[in-house]
Amino acid sequence: MSSQFSFRLLTTDGAARRGEMTTAHGVVQTPAFMAVGTRGAVKGLTPRDLVGEGAEIILGNTYHLWLRPGDGLIARQGGLHRFIGWNRPILTDSGGFQAFSLVARRRISEEGIRFRSHLDGSEHLLTPEGATDIQAQLGSDIAMALDECLAQPASLDAARESTERTARWAGRCRERFLQLQDTGNGVRPHFEDHGLEAGAIENGVRPLITNPGQAQFGIIQGGTDPELRTSSVERTLAVGFEAYAIGGLSVGEPPDTMYSVVEHTAPQLPADRPRYLMGVGTPLDLVEAVARGIDLFDCVMPTRNARNGQLFTSHGRLAIKNAQFAEDARPPDANCACYTCSNFSRAYLRHLFVVGEMTGAILNTVHNLRFYLDTMARIREAIVFGCLGSLQQTLRSTFSRQMCDL
Amino acid sequence: MSSQFSFRLLTTDGAARRGEMTTAHGVVQTPAFMAVGTRGAVKGLTPRDLVGEGAEIILGNTYHLWLRPGDGLIARQGGLHRFIGWNRPILTDSGGFQAFSLVARRRISEEGIRFRSHLDGSEHLLTPEGATDIQAQLGSDIAMALDECLAQPASLDAARESTERTARWAGRCRERFLQLQDTGNGVRPHFEDHGLEAGAIENGVRPLITNPGQAQFGIIQGGTDPELRTSSVERTLAVGFEAYAIGGLSVGEPPDTMYSVVEHTAPQLPADRPRYLMGVGTPLDLVEAVARGIDLFDCVMPTRNARNGQLFTSHGRLAIKNAQFAEDARPPDANCACYTCSNFSRAYLRHLFVVGEMTGAILNTVHNLRFYLDTMARIREAIVFGCLGSLQQTLRSTFSRQMCDL
Repeated sequence: MSSQFSFRLLTTDGAARRGEMTTAHGVVQTPAFMAVGTRGAVKGLTPRDLVGEGAEIILGNTYHLWLRPGDGLIARQGGLHRFIGWNRPILTDSGGFQAFSLVARRRISEEGIRFRSHLDGSEHLLTPEGATDIQAQLGSDIAMALDECLAQPASLDAARESTERTARWAGRCRERFLQLQDTGNGVRPHFEDHGLEAGAIENGVRPLITNPGQAQFGIIQGGTDPELRTSSVERTLAVGFEAYAIGGLSVGEPPDTMYSVVEHTAPQLPADRPRYLMGVGTPLDLVEAVARGIDLFDCVMPTRNARNGQLFTSHGRLAIKNAQFAEDARPPDANCACYTCSNFSRAYLRHLFVVGEMTGAILNTVHNLRFYLDTMARIREAIVFGCLGSLQQTLRSTFSRQMCDL
Repeated sequence: MSSQFSFRLLTTDGAARRGEMTTAHGVVQTPAFMAVGTRGAVKGLTPRDLVGEGAEIILGNTYHLWLRPGDGLIARQGGLHRFIGWNRPILTDSGGFQAFSLVARRRISEEGIRFRSHLDGSEHLLTPEGATDIQAQLGSDIAMALDECLAQPASLDAARESTERTARWAGRCRERFLQLQDTGNGVRPHFEDHGLEAGAIENGVRPLITNPGQAQFGIIQGGTDPELRTSSVERTLAVGFEAYAIGGLSVGEPPDTMYSVVEHTAPQLPADRPRYLMGVGTPLDLVEAVARGIDLFDCVMPTRNARNGQLFTSHGRLAIKNAQFAEDARPPDANCACYTCSNFSRAYLRHLFVVGEMTGAILNTVHNLRFYLDTMARIREAIVFGCLGSLQQTLRSTFSRQMCDL
């Protein structure tokens, strides 16, 4: 592992693990949930809001930050932590998922993903090396390898080809990462926005390493096919990363399928490294995945749903716009100690939502994020006390997939 | 004065006054600026943000709160303070200004303002008694009398007629206010959204007095004509309110005209009561009006301009979207101790503005509001030290009407 990244397993409860992940910007108690700060901000929140509700780590989206304001600009500003005023851990994704999902015209080749920006149509090429360079300039504590996100449903042949390519890209990402670690300590003479300078290192323009303690995670693909997943695990472990993520899930497959793939894949990953399930999920998904050996999560659900007026509570989901809350003086969740629940009523939040006040989105986001972070805290406690199973039962009955208005 | 409202003049510097206004929800150091919380929230901020930057009093808009969520609902929720989670002083306007400015089809008669809601076209009648009842249900610390806001330019005859009507309405507002104070202590048997129940008291439906310590301010009108202003002062003082506001300014007239009207009008108002200049203004306007005897201000400028990316600083105005700030690592204002300036760069704020992140609007609003509150603090200090004139000179050179990019 890189000098500043480590993982310590504290205790287990069945397949569930309670651990501590140390990064260049501090320690994260696991299992952990990462709020999504797509473009350098968790929508509607400031860093003090995040810290106030207990966030230990956030996620940034490489695709968005690369296009605007540019990884070069962020590097020249001292890296992502300093730029956004967040001095706790940050994980960045590789940019691949957005290059696949946001972009209409894209072409995947062995070289990488060629696409036109969703913003201005300008052409870009995202290669494994480029994704590694960009994240080096961003200076996140955890960088992700570039993977191919296969659209589902896919034929087995297509899935196999995609998984193989992801494995080859993993090798290229790791090679570039190690090359940067060897050469990259200290300020380089040139550092430009990547993409303006294709093949940067070859041209003598080296990325600026803004976080020498950065770690890099590999990503397991393979769709819903167990053999492909196992093959992807083998290939990715052979490359060798600080830790590993399971990608390609939560893309529309039934929850049980996702749980099965996690149950199949997670135990094959090294026990002494954190395991990250990308883009997941509902509160129920979190506990179900933890029970199958997952340690890290990220999802836009708490923040996006907050802006859409859906609140997660210990009694289920609550659509704040509903007329039944118009004169409801209770807080969103009487069991929640967040700033919102400590100070405001459902009636007030409904009013703010109905009239479209930004302050409503802020207060809803504060609550939902706190609910997710508290859920992770309950999960961690349950593991320590050896009773994750009963918490699982509780969350199963609270969070069906249906909306449960209180 | 009502039992819980008082004003103490601490010292003066020329016509400028340093005072302390006590309300049912606490003390306000004057001269003071009130952030505008139109619909029960200062856009983009939470109460802890407001408190954190030093806000002592905010303003709520009666027109908006009456239509949504309704003054009856707010009364049933315990009044505006409790509903919005703000336990410091609140002033509410009368609703007249919005009924004039937001609504296309309106008809003014001696009875009041008949208009169709800008939301759904439903017909409403805002009378002097109704505006008083609604504000009684909102429970603000300071209620405003209903005035007619004359569209400028207006003939002298039209201005005279409008000013006379405002004076008659002032009498009706005060009569209703005193009637409510006599009868209104304690919970009433019925309290409905006003407007659903025209002539509420007559029908036995009395408003709920949610703040027995409420004070009521009268409003001086009269356009730009000195004689009309003087006549309005006489008529309004004859009615007798806890204090007085100057209305009908900052509606498009040149700044010097506004300053002249203030200079003419303010000295005619009682020295032992606060004087409120409604809807004003720029940082320069604040000091110019204080120098002419004004104690209270409100304006959407700091909050609205923040959302549009215009920041007020000790060096002038700054358009954060400008390319020159793309890599500017300095805070918006090195002399400002707000949360934003303590933690974030112009480069970051520009990025957030360019990509349209809500967090940018929040951080800009925090700064602009703090700048206004700090400007008032500097004004108060200058009065105490007898050097308001030099602060006036400083602000004149900093804030011309033009945008001064740094």
